[in-house]
Amino acid sequence: MADAALPPTAVPQPGLHAADFTKPDGRAVTLYGLKPVRVTGEMPSPSPDPVDARPVLRWHPLRGEWVMYAAHRLNRTFLPPPEYNPLAPTTDSAHPTELPPGEYDLAVFENRFPSLSLHAPDPGEGPADTRAGVGACEVVVFSQDARGRLADLEEAHMDLLLSVWADRTARLAATGRIQSVLCFENRGVEVGVTLHHPHGQIYAYDHIPPVQARMLAQAQAHHAEHGRPWLADFVAQERAAGERVVLDAGEALSVVPPFARYSFETWIVPARPVGLLAELTGRERAAFARVLKDTLLRLDGLFGVRMPYLLTVHQAPLDGPHPAFPLHIELYPYLRAPGRMKYLAGTEQGAGEFANDKFPETAAAELRAVAPEAGAAL
Amino acid sequence: MADAALPPTAVPQPGLHAADFTKPDGRAVTLYGLKPVRVTGEMPSPSPDPVDARPVLRWHPLRGEWVMYAAHRLNRTFLPPPEYNPLAPTTDSAHPTELPPGEYDLAVFENRFPSLSLHAPDPGEGPADTRAGVGACEVVVFSQDARGRLADLEEAHMDLLLSVWADRTARLAATGRIQSVLCFENRGVEVGVTLHHPHGQIYAYDHIPPVQARMLAQAQAHHAEHGRPWLADFVAQERAAGERVVLDAGEALSVVPPFARYSFETWIVPARPVGLLAELTGRERAAFARVLKDTLLRLDGLFGVRMPYLLTVHQAPLDGPHPAFPLHIELYPYLRAPGRMKYLAGTEQGAGEFANDKFPETAAAELRAVAPEAGAAL
Repeated sequence: MADAALPPTAVPQPGLHAADFTKPDGRAVTLYGLKPVRVTGEMPSPSPDPVDARPVLRWHPLRGEWVMYAAHRLNRTFLPPPEYNPLAPTTDSAHPTELPPGEYDLAVFENRFPSLSLHAPDPGEGPADTRAGVGACEVVVFSQDARGRLADLEEAHMDLLLSVWADRTARLAATGRIQSVLCFENRGVEVGVTLHHPHGQIYAYDHIPPVQARMLAQAQAHHAEHGRPWLADFVAQERAAGERVVLDAGEALSVVPPFARYSFETWIVPARPVGLLAELTGRERAAFARVLKDTLLRLDGLFGVRMPYLLTVHQAPLDGPHPAFPLHIELYPYLRAPGRMKYLAGTEQGAGEFANDKFPETAAAELRAVAPEAGAAL
Repeated sequence: MADAALPPTAVPQPGLHAADFTKPDGRAVTLYGLKPVRVTGEMPSPSPDPVDARPVLRWHPLRGEWVMYAAHRLNRTFLPPPEYNPLAPTTDSAHPTELPPGEYDLAVFENRFPSLSLHAPDPGEGPADTRAGVGACEVVVFSQDARGRLADLEEAHMDLLLSVWADRTARLAATGRIQSVLCFENRGVEVGVTLHHPHGQIYAYDHIPPVQARMLAQAQAHHAEHGRPWLADFVAQERAAGERVVLDAGEALSVVPPFARYSFETWIVPARPVGLLAELTGRERAAFARVLKDTLLRLDGLFGVRMPYLLTVHQAPLDGPHPAFPLHIELYPYLRAPGRMKYLAGTEQGAGEFANDKFPETAAAELRAVAPEAGAAL
């Protein structure tokens, strides 16, 4: 882990084995393992062409946010054979994937079609408020098993993923050009996911995006008013109320927040308020991993189908320290009832306010009633 | 039209025929026509049960926004016969719809399952920052023709819709309890729409939602800095550049804005900056209607399919006057290429920043190349 980028409150994370490589097309790859990493083939790339990413940012003057343009993304020519899985280890050198064969548990590589890049060139001419799309887009392959789910990872493997997210955050911070890192997983054919190999993505921004800016401002205002981090008050309040807690594992817990925007929206929070994954102790991280796995299994068990969802990891901006910022994971399950998707329509997109059919107290009771084993069988 | 609620800059809208009714379940209905309205049957309701809406608002402390809870929405028991269309005029008194038979062109009624209501009771006990979901949710039926589209309305009928949206805004303002009105249409099975009869909705808030608050603040800052409304500068800039204008009809134009978040996002703007539909002159409104119809036909013609989309009407908050606020319509087409939907995933939902595959200049050129007749044939 790049020590230079660790915050002073970060906890050393022994046991994280990492090995860095460069692909033939110039992209960086890191393989991670619970045991030492060993590669048994060449580092592949699906295409011999060099990456030619020219992402651009333009300013939206009325919403006050940047919009990313990556015109190279849409017209990508990529005609893989049937059953080709670019996230699996390469087994046939005639059809190279993104990853080599070998002994490793997780892999991270630069997205071949990034919306943001540390190498983004100056866009030259353009409308006002156009600039290079500086940042990074990475793909995180959760496991070598193409058919598994994030929920299927062993707890130690899930714990490793949390360490990998922390490591990527630290490495991106160490570039000195990144102010905010968003790790996420978008899952489900219902929401456009075409690669079923379990994987997530990382977007790294050279500025603080609107959601993170808003959370930071709100959390700082709470801290200033009450003299305590918002997360400390939230955990105390939810433990006292009890009715919205799904699982309390001591150092970490899952809660349907009283202000859930999705019907079964669930947050994973550490009991001790910190701003970054790297600040969790080994014991706290293990509890966090356990609660995350439990939540994912309950969501799949809820309706007996693989729940489409968005998982986002919220960490403090990197221009900090920001002791008020609450590290947490938000899980947005897209089904509000069996076969009934939540769509973001007029009020959500046009006004920025969500309509939810289900009270959080009801949702939490239904999630508590799910046996995690029901989800494990899917 | 309720004169009390009109802003001083509003323009009288002669030719709007309106007739008000009350349903058996207590909900209000207004029928609108280009000619005088005549009803030839009883005012129906699909269910004899009184409406029992108890919407609730809770505050999201980290996003700084209200979340609407309407638990009565999900468990609605409603078992219509096949081919039953609640938005069509009632023809069989055994299966009453929402509307009577008669001579009218548009209809507006209170949503039977509202996320917000002017009659919302106090929710009593609850987590901190819980309050009654005060506001209004209305359904706007665009036409008696169940198989048509918004794009199929004659220009005079489209013009009438703009007047109806203006009238609803004025009536909601006249209650003295509404600060912001959002008129919208969400179209397409791809985004969960199950009623194909052309219709839209209105959400009326007793506060200024995040998107409107942000737009107002950004527009006011522009006005203060440059001494001109943002919309005046935008129209001048886009006319000078030319490459993003799809159709310029003099008093109104369609533009793919240089900061479009969706691949074929198109805005309809008046050439003269105003904040409310009610401020448009008859001539301006007619041009606005013409450009809106043209845009909708081009979107359907683009890939030769009925384009799923979200249409939102952005008007100034009602606690104004807000001369800086730019009245406009935003159209978000959900297809970015044939058969390829845009989904809001990690960066859009987790960071609040959109990734777009297509530059607005390219999108505008492709939309200009579509003959509106191609869309009319679908």
